[in-house]
Amino acid sequence: MTVRRAAIECHAIETLPLVHPGDDLPALLARAIRTTGVALAPYDVVAVCQKIVSKAEGRIVDLAGITPSAFATRIAASTGKDARVVEVILRESTRIVKMADGHLICETGPGWICANAGVDESNAERLDSVTLLPHDADASAEALRVRLSAEADGAPVGVVVTDTFGRPWRDGLVDVALGVAGIGAVLDYRGATDMGGRELHHTLIAQADAIAAAAGLLMVKGAGIPAVVVRGLGWERTTGRGRDLVRPAALDLFR
Amino acid sequence: MTVRRAAIECHAIETLPLVHPGDDLPALLARAIRTTGVALAPYDVVAVCQKIVSKAEGRIVDLAGITPSAFATRIAASTGKDARVVEVILRESTRIVKMADGHLICETGPGWICANAGVDESNAERLDSVTLLPHDADASAEALRVRLSAEADGAPVGVVVTDTFGRPWRDGLVDVALGVAGIGAVLDYRGATDMGGRELHHTLIAQADAIAAAAGLLMVKGAGIPAVVVRGLGWERTTGRGRDLVRPAALDLFR
Repeated sequence: MTVRRAAIECHAIETLPLVHPGDDLPALLARAIRTTGVALAPYDVVAVCQKIVSKAEGRIVDLAGITPSAFATRIAASTGKDARVVEVILRESTRIVKMADGHLICETGPGWICANAGVDESNAERLDSVTLLPHDADASAEALRVRLSAEADGAPVGVVVTDTFGRPWRDGLVDVALGVAGIGAVLDYRGATDMGGRELHHTLIAQADAIAAAAGLLMVKGAGIPAVVVRGLGWERTTGRGRDLVRPAALDLFR
Repeated sequence: MTVRRAAIECHAIETLPLVHPGDDLPALLARAIRTTGVALAPYDVVAVCQKIVSKAEGRIVDLAGITPSAFATRIAASTGKDARVVEVILRESTRIVKMADGHLICETGPGWICANAGVDESNAERLDSVTLLPHDADASAEALRVRLSAEADGAPVGVVVTDTFGRPWRDGLVDVALGVAGIGAVLDYRGATDMGGRELHHTLIAQADAIAAAAGLLMVKGAGIPAVVVRGLGWERTTGRGRDLVRPAALDLFR
């Protein structure tokens, strides 16, 4: 299976209003794409930042209602964080990967490794609140895909819900895919050969992460761009989930 | 500092001939961009895959001339690799990060963590040979930048030399930046605030890795696309090196 792509375009969707809990994000996004002047076409992929998905889904926690545990209180003292925020981080975590220098690297969701379990104090709905990652980003992506595909007269449309993650070894953050619908998260080249006829070594390509990273070039911090339409990808495999991007621990030689 | 980008385009450069050691890659690439019909414009970034840079720089090792050490021979036996290839991998490595299941994850160059220290058996010039990573990918990028900027009448042009890496935690491979010239490898938002006036948590954005990942969507395996022009980024900071993307071990909580 070889995909050939001569060109791709990424268009920033700038006209989305501030999103509030309970908003119909698929409808808001469809309208924003229209008013930006980008008519969705077959095989467009819409990258949507996690934050607006979480807000629409009401994944906002009012810190006034949080009573920190003894452990959260102790961690807060040693990290300089708000104990209530630490409590929320612990509730979102399935595992603490590393805890040092005021930072918490956690495992959350289907196996995402990220700072603070994705709990975010910036750009929340209210000042004394934090946002969580979507409960099931693949389901969030699928709900968006259904509505956006309808917007494109039923044509195949992909959706990638993105977030900005740090990573080991390499400095700086990149946007990655949390939720995927309508497009393969991973391209599988097992069995394919190179130009010399030898089997390819690079067999699984994290396509959805590359789409997220490309969209991230437009979703620059502070620019207020929550969504990007990526055009020109084309694809053959139309199934895939964000959780396909979790590397099984037993096969992870990089960690 | 906030960059605003309404749209970016990525154009595949398809007309590059097979590259051989000693070839004038900057000139070949300038010509290929021209014949693809993409006239380089100010602030274009040209992503170039490591493989053709290495080939042009003669970073090809004839395995017939390699005598494996005792250690390489033992590792080869346990991994099922060619002992001469293991020997080359060890010569390119400053550290073995992990060794298991027939795989070698190594540290090489300025601090890249990658499989086999970047030594690649596929698509090499001759069958009984392997390619190495560029000796100094930042210098490779700078040499390309000088020629490609001249092609754009002296306008600012960025260059990113890319390679395809696996990574911890997340499955599949993505393209990352090894060498950077003319554009900041990392965007620094320290001190910037969000829409609510709070200091941003995501302070260092690995822009060059995002550019590499975006270009990687076109450099799909087997498609024979060794270079991509990325247009529409714009930038303010014109200095940066690939080695800016090495996360200092003491600050790496993700590993």
